[in-house]
Amino acid sequence: MNPLHSLTLGDLAREHRRSWPLATAVVDGDVRHTYPELDDRVNRLTNALAAEGVGPGDRLLWLGQNSHRVLESLLAAAKLGAVLSVANWRQSAAELRFVLGDLEPAVVFWQPLDGVAEVRDAAEKARWIQDGAEYETLLATGAAADPEIAVDPAAPVLALYTAAFDGTPNAALLSHAALIGHSLSLALARQMEPGFAYLNSGPLFHVGTAMFCLATFQLGGKNVFLPAYDAAEAARLIEAERCDGAFLFGPMIDALVEAGAGHDLSSLHAPAGSEAWNAMITVDTSPWSRAFAGYGQTEVGGMLTYSGYGVGGIGSHGRPSPLVQVRIVDPSGAELPVGEIGELVARGQHMMTGYHNRPALNAAKQTGGWHHTGDLGRRESDGTLSFLGPRLRMLKSGGENIYPVEVERCLATHPAVAECAVIGERDMEWGQRVVAVVVLKGEATAGELIAHCRDSIASYKKPSRVEFADAIPKRGYSPDYDALDAAYGGGGYPGS
Amino acid sequence: MNPLHSLTLGDLAREHRRSWPLATAVVDGDVRHTYPELDDRVNRLTNALAAEGVGPGDRLLWLGQNSHRVLESLLAAAKLGAVLSVANWRQSAAELRFVLGDLEPAVVFWQPLDGVAEVRDAAEKARWIQDGAEYETLLATGAAADPEIAVDPAAPVLALYTAAFDGTPNAALLSHAALIGHSLSLALARQMEPGFAYLNSGPLFHVGTAMFCLATFQLGGKNVFLPAYDAAEAARLIEAERCDGAFLFGPMIDALVEAGAGHDLSSLHAPAGSEAWNAMITVDTSPWSRAFAGYGQTEVGGMLTYSGYGVGGIGSHGRPSPLVQVRIVDPSGAELPVGEIGELVARGQHMMTGYHNRPALNAAKQTGGWHHTGDLGRRESDGTLSFLGPRLRMLKSGGENIYPVEVERCLATHPAVAECAVIGERDMEWGQRVVAVVVLKGEATAGELIAHCRDSIASYKKPSRVEFADAIPKRGYSPDYDALDAAYGGGGYPGS
Repeated sequence: MNPLHSLTLGDLAREHRRSWPLATAVVDGDVRHTYPELDDRVNRLTNALAAEGVGPGDRLLWLGQNSHRVLESLLAAAKLGAVLSVANWRQSAAELRFVLGDLEPAVVFWQPLDGVAEVRDAAEKARWIQDGAEYETLLATGAAADPEIAVDPAAPVLALYTAAFDGTPNAALLSHAALIGHSLSLALARQMEPGFAYLNSGPLFHVGTAMFCLATFQLGGKNVFLPAYDAAEAARLIEAERCDGAFLFGPMIDALVEAGAGHDLSSLHAPAGSEAWNAMITVDTSPWSRAFAGYGQTEVGGMLTYSGYGVGGIGSHGRPSPLVQVRIVDPSGAELPVGEIGELVARGQHMMTGYHNRPALNAAKQTGGWHHTGDLGRRESDGTLSFLGPRLRMLKSGGENIYPVEVERCLATHPAVAECAVIGERDMEWGQRVVAVVVLKGEATAGELIAHCRDSIASYKKPSRVEFADAIPKRGYSPDYDALDAAYGGGGYPGS
Repeated sequence: MNPLHSLTLGDLAREHRRSWPLATAVVDGDVRHTYPELDDRVNRLTNALAAEGVGPGDRLLWLGQNSHRVLESLLAAAKLGAVLSVANWRQSAAELRFVLGDLEPAVVFWQPLDGVAEVRDAAEKARWIQDGAEYETLLATGAAADPEIAVDPAAPVLALYTAAFDGTPNAALLSHAALIGHSLSLALARQMEPGFAYLNSGPLFHVGTAMFCLATFQLGGKNVFLPAYDAAEAARLIEAERCDGAFLFGPMIDALVEAGAGHDLSSLHAPAGSEAWNAMITVDTSPWSRAFAGYGQTEVGGMLTYSGYGVGGIGSHGRPSPLVQVRIVDPSGAELPVGEIGELVARGQHMMTGYHNRPALNAAKQTGGWHHTGDLGRRESDGTLSFLGPRLRMLKSGGENIYPVEVERCLATHPAVAECAVIGERDMEWGQRVVAVVVLKGEATAGELIAHCRDSIASYKKPSRVEFADAIPKRGYSPDYDALDAAYGGGGYPGS
């Protein structure tokens, strides 16, 4: 591996301590670290973990809320040639157990959140290090000298679990090169500059927040961390840290408009919204905000297309990132003509390496050297792209992807359920809510079935409503979701 | 080579015909091609050249002024896995002969400019194809179907000859990955968007123009070509094509201010200048223009640092591109502390592959996996970088680098010259002019010596003034340039 053309996340930390010696890299409560302080701490953590035997290819897991230590442990993983995963702490104990067993982490950084302590048995071989004093004690044992381990930029460094589109979650592995390429592409669309200050107000286990955290880091900017969203604290931090950007959508913005009264939020550049919102912030004119976001998924590092690259065009989701190629293909992989619906496939620098530990699934997803998104799209006559929804049906609630198959599998384990199907109904606040249609073979109330789901899958995936039926309409062997939508008020699906 | 993460210049042409089917890719006189038309022509040229036996690693040479066919033949080289070089047509016959012998091109695309016909013997094995009818006839023999040849993005695709810092010019080989990375970094600093229209008003053999041509292409923008600079035609084209950018400096801008009267040049976003200039154009506020340009060289694909990433800082040349690492090192390669002067070295995605056919020089330039720029710099206490001038002394006149050693070698071949040294004097119009200090051993006038240089090196390198002396002051074995500057009015060196 010739280092001449190489750049890793660890190299960025090395460069930034030189280029931005006085700049604040992270802010988290009372913690403020400059780039040299961040890199010193990364070096100590890297050396401490290496002394524990952690090495290339090993997995680290962050099992907690947002923290400056998420970026720190990601950079330590980067310098070790290891991989950091950030777990969705809102998951049920069963789901967390699945992740721990699947990832087989060497180290788990954990916070004492509900349910975390009880799943330790699922990763008994891991070293469990509690966030806070235990983490700091470990870090202090490491030397500050940069270990200068050679790391291939094509090696994975971040693993983010995606929603369970095939019944179980899968960890998308993203390499240094993928994250660096994606960051630059995102920074171009958002017209970010060095000094950009980003409020990490969404969860870092979600690519939507992680991608902005990384782009901010890549440009030598300032990452401000909020453990979990709190509108009053967000308003205070945006004012105090002069944040340029934040992870915000629908209900989060509504709460911020209320909490922001009396705060100067003019540093925040965001897409236009209500009159009150526009008066508080600076309306952003970058392509990113001009037509909000685009089409993306964790497996492509975040964004595949930017709506702002197709403003006024026919397609709903703009044009691709300048680092990728996109095609619309039929099930055989042959490209479809303009105007026809097929699967969106892509290749380029910011595609994932593959899912952790899923050789068969990866072979299918990467057939012919194209990443198969599992989503349906169309190329329009003006070259813009439309995203039409998942090839497998998916709901979206509060920004989270929910696959009916996962909720259905959970319901089917209840002894009173003979058959079931899950649809989404439109919801003004969250986009969609989960509706279960159930055929009983025993006795169960709606409340009992909802409680059953809450016990084994994330709370946001549980049905909000259960409809009892005599039969589930079918198309072949699968539920006829269109008929179910028509009968039970389904709608509001992503891409619709 | 797994295509999953791959992207070449040819792939960009493939993507753009789909994403930008209606957009104009190139404008050149009466010629206008959309992206599908450009890609069709590229495919035909690629197939026609392949039929002639041109293949991976072969060199093509463009020996002429700017044309849409420069981009076209670059993209054909890209799809073949070959390399295009663009020759400086202002060179002397001797210099062109050197380039032809050094590059050993399989194909030369040529225009009947002064001196071109007489150098054909220096590349007798090459197929010489005249720009115009002969080029079009060749292109028409190729099929329009994309040949779909697999090309490694790490393979070189563009070769640009740099100034003769070691006595002869060297061709810096830039790979697909280097050019694509550099384009994105430049687009970020210049806040370019899809639809960007660029007037190629500088020569394409110069990286300063080529890099904007490529960034415009990468974003699906419009490249407008001017064969050579002409202020009246530039004003007409900026208005007619609503150009956002153009290659312009000092005297070119002065001429445009005069020629632009009565033209609407408001589409042009450029750095602020005179009052008359600012009133004609739109003053650009991107980092690129906020503090003009930065530090760069052909060997890094164009720009290594951006002044706009260090506005108000201590250093004169800002901070690095987000895709590179920069260090200041002593002659042993050890990093120097902040504030000390040493050689600027760098690594990252947009470094050149190496010089064509210079294994020994490449080994020296790439020692330790760092590209050695040959330039002196300093890291300041705020992390910004200062460029202090070439490690080897260099002059700059009209934007062209001139190495004294090259002019001295030329003068030394005159039978009347015993010894000589070349310095630069400050010039209001061109930055610097060349001054020769000569010790005679026979009879020659200043005019004869200047004419001697005009015959064998590019006209802009010939001395403007010759001073006769009894001896050349020395420092060791080399001329004492500082003493010569003091004695003969030298000054205005780049970085000073």
